[in-house]
Amino acid sequence: AQSSVTLYGRLDLSINKPTGSALKNMSNGSGSRFGVRGVEDLGGGLSAFFNLEHRFDADTGAQSAGPVAAGNNANAAPLSRFWTGRSIVGLQGGFGKITLGREYTTAFLMSQLAADPWGWDTVVSGTPTGGLNQLITGGAIARVRNDSSLTYNFSAAGFSLGAQIAESSDTINKFNKRPFNFAVSYAAGPVALMLGYEKTGQVQKDSAKWLTVNGTFNLGAVKLGALYGKGNTDAGADHKSYLLTAVAPLGQGEFRASYGRLKNETANVDAAKGFAVGYHYALSKRTTLYTDFLRNTALATNKTGYDFGIKHNF
Amino acid sequence: AQSSVTLYGRLDLSINKPTGSALKNMSNGSGSRFGVRGVEDLGGGLSAFFNLEHRFDADTGAQSAGPVAAGNNANAAPLSRFWTGRSIVGLQGGFGKITLGREYTTAFLMSQLAADPWGWDTVVSGTPTGGLNQLITGGAIARVRNDSSLTYNFSAAGFSLGAQIAESSDTINKFNKRPFNFAVSYAAGPVALMLGYEKTGQVQKDSAKWLTVNGTFNLGAVKLGALYGKGNTDAGADHKSYLLTAVAPLGQGEFRASYGRLKNETANVDAAKGFAVGYHYALSKRTTLYTDFLRNTALATNKTGYDFGIKHNF
Amino acid sequence: AQSSVTLYGRLDLSINKPTGSALKNMSNGSGSRFGVRGVEDLGGGLSAFFNLEHRFDADTGAQSAGPVAAGNNANAAPLSRFWTGRSIVGLQGGFGKITLGREYTTAFLMSQLAADPWGWDTVVSGTPTGGLNQLITGGAIARVRNDSSLTYNFSAAGFSLGAQIAESSDTINKFNKRPFNFAVSYAAGPVALMLGYEKTGQVQKDSAKWLTVNGTFNLGAVKLGALYGKGNTDAGADHKSYLLTAVAPLGQGEFRASYGRLKNETANVDAAKGFAVGYHYALSKRTTLYTDFLRNTALATNKTGYDFGIKHNF
Repeated sequence: AQSSVTLYGRLDLSINKPTGSALKNMSNGSGSRFGVRGVEDLGGGLSAFFNLEHRFDADTGAQSAGPVAAGNNANAAPLSRFWTGRSIVGLQGGFGKITLGREYTTAFLMSQLAADPWGWDTVVSGTPTGGLNQLITGGAIARVRNDSSLTYNFSAAGFSLGAQIAESSDTINKFNKRPFNFAVSYAAGPVALMLGYEKTGQVQKDSAKWLTVNGTFNLGAVKLGALYGKGNTDAGADHKSYLLTAVAPLGQGEFRASYGRLKNETANVDAAKGFAVGYHYALSKRTTLYTDFLRNTALATNKTGYDFGIKHNF
Repeated sequence: AQSSVTLYGRLDLSINKPTGSALKNMSNGSGSRFGVRGVEDLGGGLSAFFNLEHRFDADTGAQSAGPVAAGNNANAAPLSRFWTGRSIVGLQGGFGKITLGREYTTAFLMSQLAADPWGWDTVVSGTPTGGLNQLITGGAIARVRNDSSLTYNFSAAGFSLGAQIAESSDTINKFNKRPFNFAVSYAAGPVALMLGYEKTGQVQKDSAKWLTVNGTFNLGAVKLGALYGKGNTDAGADHKSYLLTAVAPLGQGEFRASYGRLKNETANVDAAKGFAVGYHYALSKRTTLYTDFLRNTALATNKTGYDFGIKHNF
Repeated sequence: AQSSVTLYGRLDLSINKPTGSALKNMSNGSGSRFGVRGVEDLGGGLSAFFNLEHRFDADTGAQSAGPVAAGNNANAAPLSRFWTGRSIVGLQGGFGKITLGREYTTAFLMSQLAADPWGWDTVVSGTPTGGLNQLITGGAIARVRNDSSLTYNFSAAGFSLGAQIAESSDTINKFNKRPFNFAVSYAAGPVALMLGYEKTGQVQKDSAKWLTVNGTFNLGAVKLGALYGKGNTDAGADHKSYLLTAVAPLGQGEFRASYGRLKNETANVDAAKGFAVGYHYALSKRTTLYTDFLRNTALATNKTGYDFGIKHNF
């Protein structure tokens, strides 16, 4: 059975000062992980696949709950989910791809995540939960993963489509309705366009939802990007956001920059606002040294964050 | 060291309505698992072996406690047992096989489990705990695994013998005495006969025990089977059960059927009674699609259960 | 990615009677473990490495906290640390080796552990926590591992140097200061000399610290060793210890013996005092059968301990 399994993972540790905290410490730069995955060819164009992914804090070795959107902790008992990153099995063929289990929302994977040059990682987006670009792209509404979900994906001629429904199993956080989300993307030459929409299933005064439209244009020397987001929380607060991004190859590494804002229109206050820059230097395809710097001026204190880290994939 | 380890596992998810519940949901069809095992040749016919098996709920990625017999939750703190499926090391040679650690009871592995065409899996037997055939074959008394156990196995000329003693370590559920169990089996041509007996160590008014005698006859087109079970709970209730089974190869799959009953003779009520049918279609040796249907008329409501699932071994 | 990962582990179970307890049971002889590790060649003499190590109790399959020094439980919530054995990533080159994460203290790895013929394992040192040689070599002060640590190692011409600082993250047990430790060792021909020093960061009346000086002399037929330890607890109690050891190859195995003492000079009482002997027989390079016997006369009752075990590495 050995040959059918790929073991993979990541350790990512940085010495950082996150925004919103005076603490300087060593912690996960992105979600450190340990996973197994495999694909079985069933013949006739059909294949079965699975993926299990455990997340942990590399500074202590402790099991972690993985990134969840601020204000939307969907995990009633996060520590009980050992495979919190992913726990899926499915079939793939000419009809597309059907996935069962604990899986990323399509809106997250195909739009929200893709819009952030940092991929919801580092002190810019993910350390700790509630980093600047995570708030802007997720709107403090979006849910990263759903338990007991059924996901459908299809790709052809540059178009990709994804849709997901899930069980309304999280009663603690008022996720009383079936979570639902979909996303579409289109890529042609230097252009990529994405749209993601989700209803998280969290319902109180209103039904929480989050829409993002984003795109990138690759000029070669630099890849420019933009996102526009709009939605409301279950408490009925309207959220709007935008993000402008630039990613440029530089030596053996990559320079990243972004500027954006998430505004609570109902309360007329910024939830997040500011810029971030970073340089990620590849020692190899698998090992990266990086440093980042950001300002979130929506915060009253500790507006500045930075990190120095090492990310090692295996 | 890599070459000496085999990584294996299973993801099994079904959309199901279990008996005894109105809930329709996505959940484990059988125990989803992740394991490592290996055998080392020590020369002279001697070998060392080990097996670690983690169990989880594939719909959420959460660590699970694995199947335990109804009314006999032997796990004081199930979530702390990461390798709840199995945690064993041992030696094997001409003298037989000696196993130390957390291991299946011999009565479960060689008789109770073998009697159920569903192998304690799917909505018929295992989803949720307390499915129809699990109750009938386990008598609502049997214990699936024991911690800190010492197991001996020997096989020759169609005969197999197993015996196990374990520590009386579970004080919470009144397992005050050393669990003890043994099993014998005999296979010759189309015939297989099995007997399992266990004292669970759970003692209150009486010492809980469970005896099963079962056999199968392979006619080629169909394999017929029967089980008779008898024992008593620690509260002194006499339990009796029988199960009739048929398994027939059908196309790329297998048709399964059973009818049986578990009766509490002391209270003169049925604990479980009914039939089950299922069709398990093999997409490959490793991947199966299945559907099952059952009726448990001993229940006051929600007597019907069914499932549609995918089981993928790796 | 598979090729870059080595999966390894150990199951070690013994039937034992530890000192300080009347209990005879089956339990871990040494820390049973499951780990992954890898090294990536980055070119130019530089390499990246990682190591994740999970610890568990092989008798139950339960996640364990790993060995911690008596009186110094540094783990606020040990069960949340799945990779409690190790969780590290780092770079190695001509400059030495830099390690980030949850790592052994250098004083433990290079001096305290090296001084004990049993390596903090078996009923002699590690079953349960607080065995005789663990107390003597660790002084009931030393801390085995630190979270969020930065470790530097360098080796050349028989000399090795290690130094570590870590976060003062464990507020529950009064680890209010940054843990710090260093160690040096020298090996030439039959002689090996080691020194370890650590301040655990645990501060109350005093700052807890522990110094060990030890060495071995290999006569061929037997390797003799000695350790001297000195330090104080955070409560201001002065601890002093010594240990004399002998290890002799004998047939396919190894005979081990030690005599030593840990004294609380402030209270003028022995914390541990006695001898231990053991024979560890190698069935192969990976599989060992062993038996040990010890007396700890500093205990009021249950001064005697013994074990019979099997240790299987994979």
